[in-house]
Amino acid sequence: MIRLNDNYSKLKASYLFADIAKRVNAYVATHPDKPVIRLGIGDVTEPLPPVCIAALHAATDEMAHRATFKGYGPEQGYAFLREAAAKHDFQALGAKIEADEIFISDGSKCDVANIQEIFAHDTRLAIPDPVYPVYVDTNVMAGRTGANVEGRYEGITYLDSTAANGYVPSPPEVSSSNPPADLIYLCFPNNPTGAIATRAQLAAWVAYAKQHGALILYDAAYESYIRTPGIPRSIYEIEGARDVAIEFRSFSKLAGFTGLRCAYTVVPKSLQARDANGKLHGVHALWNRRHTTKFNGVSYPVQQAAAAVYTPEGRAQTRALTDFYLGNAKLIRDAMTKLGMSCIGGDDAPYIWVNTGRDSWEFFDLLLNQAQVVVTPGAGFGKCGEGHVRISAFNSRDAVEKALARIAAALKQ
Amino acid sequence: MIRLNDNYSKLKASYLFADIAKRVNAYVATHPDKPVIRLGIGDVTEPLPPVCIAALHAATDEMAHRATFKGYGPEQGYAFLREAAAKHDFQALGAKIEADEIFISDGSKCDVANIQEIFAHDTRLAIPDPVYPVYVDTNVMAGRTGANVEGRYEGITYLDSTAANGYVPSPPEVSSSNPPADLIYLCFPNNPTGAIATRAQLAAWVAYAKQHGALILYDAAYESYIRTPGIPRSIYEIEGARDVAIEFRSFSKLAGFTGLRCAYTVVPKSLQARDANGKLHGVHALWNRRHTTKFNGVSYPVQQAAAAVYTPEGRAQTRALTDFYLGNAKLIRDAMTKLGMSCIGGDDAPYIWVNTGRDSWEFFDLLLNQAQVVVTPGAGFGKCGEGHVRISAFNSRDAVEKALARIAAALKQ
Repeated sequence: MIRLNDNYSKLKASYLFADIAKRVNAYVATHPDKPVIRLGIGDVTEPLPPVCIAALHAATDEMAHRATFKGYGPEQGYAFLREAAAKHDFQALGAKIEADEIFISDGSKCDVANIQEIFAHDTRLAIPDPVYPVYVDTNVMAGRTGANVEGRYEGITYLDSTAANGYVPSPPEVSSSNPPADLIYLCFPNNPTGAIATRAQLAAWVAYAKQHGALILYDAAYESYIRTPGIPRSIYEIEGARDVAIEFRSFSKLAGFTGLRCAYTVVPKSLQARDANGKLHGVHALWNRRHTTKFNGVSYPVQQAAAAVYTPEGRAQTRALTDFYLGNAKLIRDAMTKLGMSCIGGDDAPYIWVNTGRDSWEFFDLLLNQAQVVVTPGAGFGKCGEGHVRISAFNSRDAVEKALARIAAALKQ
Repeated sequence: MIRLNDNYSKLKASYLFADIAKRVNAYVATHPDKPVIRLGIGDVTEPLPPVCIAALHAATDEMAHRATFKGYGPEQGYAFLREAAAKHDFQALGAKIEADEIFISDGSKCDVANIQEIFAHDTRLAIPDPVYPVYVDTNVMAGRTGANVEGRYEGITYLDSTAANGYVPSPPEVSSSNPPADLIYLCFPNNPTGAIATRAQLAAWVAYAKQHGALILYDAAYESYIRTPGIPRSIYEIEGARDVAIEFRSFSKLAGFTGLRCAYTVVPKSLQARDANGKLHGVHALWNRRHTTKFNGVSYPVQQAAAAVYTPEGRAQTRALTDFYLGNAKLIRDAMTKLGMSCIGGDDAPYIWVNTGRDSWEFFDLLLNQAQVVVTPGAGFGKCGEGHVRISAFNSRDAVEKALARIAAALKQ
């Protein structure tokens, strides 16, 4: 008799975005004359860079002729893209990452979700709060947690990210009652807070991982928004990180690929983990086995479009794109600060994390009803998100300016 | 201390295609004057249909303008594609499948690999032999099997597909020592054998599943090659299959999408499975949770190209494409039969399964060395593949004709 994976029943149904949609739809239905501006979701709004459009057209033409047609490509991605990523994203920073340590995929969400499969079932997890829900949910599905008790799953060490620590958690204290974590999820620039980690902060995590034999999963999907000098763009800029970290990168927010789908994961060949007998093995070989068995490569025209991002024109065009969104972000952060709320993010990230000083759903409702602006209640990202909202910089300049004027008017009432 | 998923160590390293490549490369290196013809791998060779090329160009242009740009799409796929698939692939056959029961993905390999996640850890598996290795390997990785003993994993019921049963296994006898399977993998038209299942044969499996509360995973990736009248194109043409089966479809072999990446999975809303307490739940909701948590949708231009397949022009162009490969298949099957070997497949599938009457690697070496033709040794697909080779019809007419002439000459020596 077929039975289901009962771990799914532990999942707290994520009503966040469904709940937001429900409230927004109800408002729109009853106020058809009041157009709503959406600064809630983290999706880009501007068109693809011209180099990517040209690459898509050219690759499509290749697919139209027998001599240039491409069938199955390498599951790990074409060499032209892996080599460009290794050279420009790492070697240019002095980080020793080789092309064959890069696995091209159709999305960071997929990679970040799938990576846990190659680790042991009784892996001890450390996960930030607030957090991108995929890190937690995929481990719940895999049976690595207990029940959800008052919004937190048993068996996870939550890394509180609050105003008290500048929204960047330090490695937890280790004691007999508090054993070290095995697998640590980190994300900088952070979603949802927009916080960035300094070199010293990342070095502390690498040192912790080295000391305790832990492995860091470093989500750098928003790397292209870093503008502050000296902030590491990759964890591999930290000495020794090659031996303890996997990094996730994405073309989604860098080049507007949310609808095109391309990302990659770096698994250094020097990264090792133990089997049940304590023997060390390369993690690269295991991820390669997982990737080649369960995935069949990224669409060829999309890989060509991603490679175009690394050309001089592509780098200029994507820089202009991220600069544009950061311009929106600065307006948002300045406006919210002027309204008396402390904010982080926005300087090196497309998100502004606003400490509203009140219930996050209450503030959401106020902005929707009084200003017709949609933001994301922080409570949806975890316990530590309570009292905050995330405002996204992904929209037109005009929409952002209108939204901010409306918010200011509503809050002054 | 981070530890690996030790189930991976049970995997018999699949050296099949690596081994083939090694032998072929060695031959080519020592015989640079003798060009090799490859009829080994199952990858298409002809360009994309013109409707798909046009759709890719048009969708690329949409991505170039703010007003028509597409960011994140629905994880389950755009309605235009789900509706076209439901209408043309099922409702046109009288099978009651609705658009919201269809999940668009980037490949059948991924879906067939991921689907096992939503079922219990102690699920009893029935898997054909010979077989597409992904069905087996993904369950080994998930820890549902024991060790590999003489080429077979403990804990799997293998469904022998041999000349004795016409390469179509019947449901196994159930007894106290032979409990019923919970999860059954079936693939028709079959890879690697090219065998097809009649309505009566599929009905027997549906009846078995109903009787024992089992669930059938039906891989129909080669459906578009069916030409024999009366052969079901979908398992949902069988009465009651909606309550016991998930079906996998692909655009890869239908429209040459192996490098473009699009497929879909059908999970009927009437399909149920039990939790640990015996309570029934919809499987659709679980797969939807898995799909939306770990996947972010298929590239928008690719979904438009897939939708173009369902237009009248698209249907004519893809029919011409599959007819072309089936023309190759007929030549291969006729030639091998004339050489005194019994064959199946090729009538309704792009593969011909040749009973060579000798060791499959020996026959592979003979064809490589004497005829400079690459085929796939059947032993690579499982124990029951021994004595057979798979010949693929994916190549130009000219290459197929040359290969067959060379094989005939080599075997007559």
